[in-house]
Amino acid sequence: MSLTDVIDGTRQAVQTDRHNAAVSFSVDHALAANTATVVDVRVRDHAFTVDEPPALGGTDQAANPVEYALAALGSCQVITYQFWAARLGIPLDSVRVKVDGDLDLHGFFGFDESTRPGFSDVRVSVELDGPATPEAYDRLRRAVDEHCPVLDLFRNQTPVTTTVR
Amino acid sequence: MSLTDVIDGTRQAVQTDRHNAAVSFSVDHALAANTATVVDVRVRDHAFTVDEPPALGGTDQAANPVEYALAALGSCQVITYQFWAARLGIPLDSVRVKVDGDLDLHGFFGFDESTRPGFSDVRVSVELDGPATPEAYDRLRRAVDEHCPVLDLFRNQTPVTTTVR
Repeated sequence: MSLTDVIDGTRQAVQTDRHNAAVSFSVDHALAANTATVVDVRVRDHAFTVDEPPALGGTDQAANPVEYALAALGSCQVITYQFWAARLGIPLDSVRVKVDGDLDLHGFFGFDESTRPGFSDVRVSVELDGPATPEAYDRLRRAVDEHCPVLDLFRNQTPVTTTVR
Repeated sequence: MSLTDVIDGTRQAVQTDRHNAAVSFSVDHALAANTATVVDVRVRDHAFTVDEPPALGGTDQAANPVEYALAALGSCQVITYQFWAARLGIPLDSVRVKVDGDLDLHGFFGFDESTRPGFSDVRVSVELDGPATPEAYDRLRRAVDEHCPVLDLFRNQTPVTTTVR
């Protein structure tokens, strides 16, 4: 099924019932036995690992949480470019995205309570190839940046509740 | 090296030079050949895949970007619990975290421009085991939620610039 078919099918489904657009995602995480930082993650039928590099107390079996956050952003940009190129009818041959993020560890370790624990700055560099005009790709970029779910998550506040038992 | 050693070593390093706490992370993403939604991700020596389920035009080879974003949050919570339990001297035998997020696809598809593309609500459920008192684990939860980098990313605005070439 092409992305255009997916867009048209979804449009029809949400016009029939607006609630068809309400989706929920759920992810489980557990510390691997006898480790300090290795996290086993399960999402539907998929499983993967998160760890820290040795400098942060880990064994470097996989990327760390903030790197996965940047990967969520970069992959969301790639896929949103694909969808919105289809939606706007702009031909696109390839998409590559590099994401860089800066963070000051004073925040995470609590060495300076005025330093935020998260990223202070994030830069997304997109490389597009295709036969359309620069103006068309600029229109595409604006549409992507308005509709990319993970870019929205980075740029804006999201309500999160945490509970412990 | 124990997490306590890592905390003490980092404290010493940043007291010597504050800039030792400034770290940068970088992640590369490319659309896999002949696919619409399969993204190959590279982080240092690590590689993994992102995809969409069929309902979103993909082949379901892996979790999708918003699921990776939730996994970044859940794994960051697990690891921040480990670090702050060590930092506060609170014994902790196990940590499990479930993260649920709700999203309205009207935003991503641009069917309703008043709907945000990102999560409207996120819930983090943490399960702790250990011999400390409920009060100690509540103190731990407050410390974790103040210092967890990806929780900060979700709850607050982060500056992001995007450039295309």
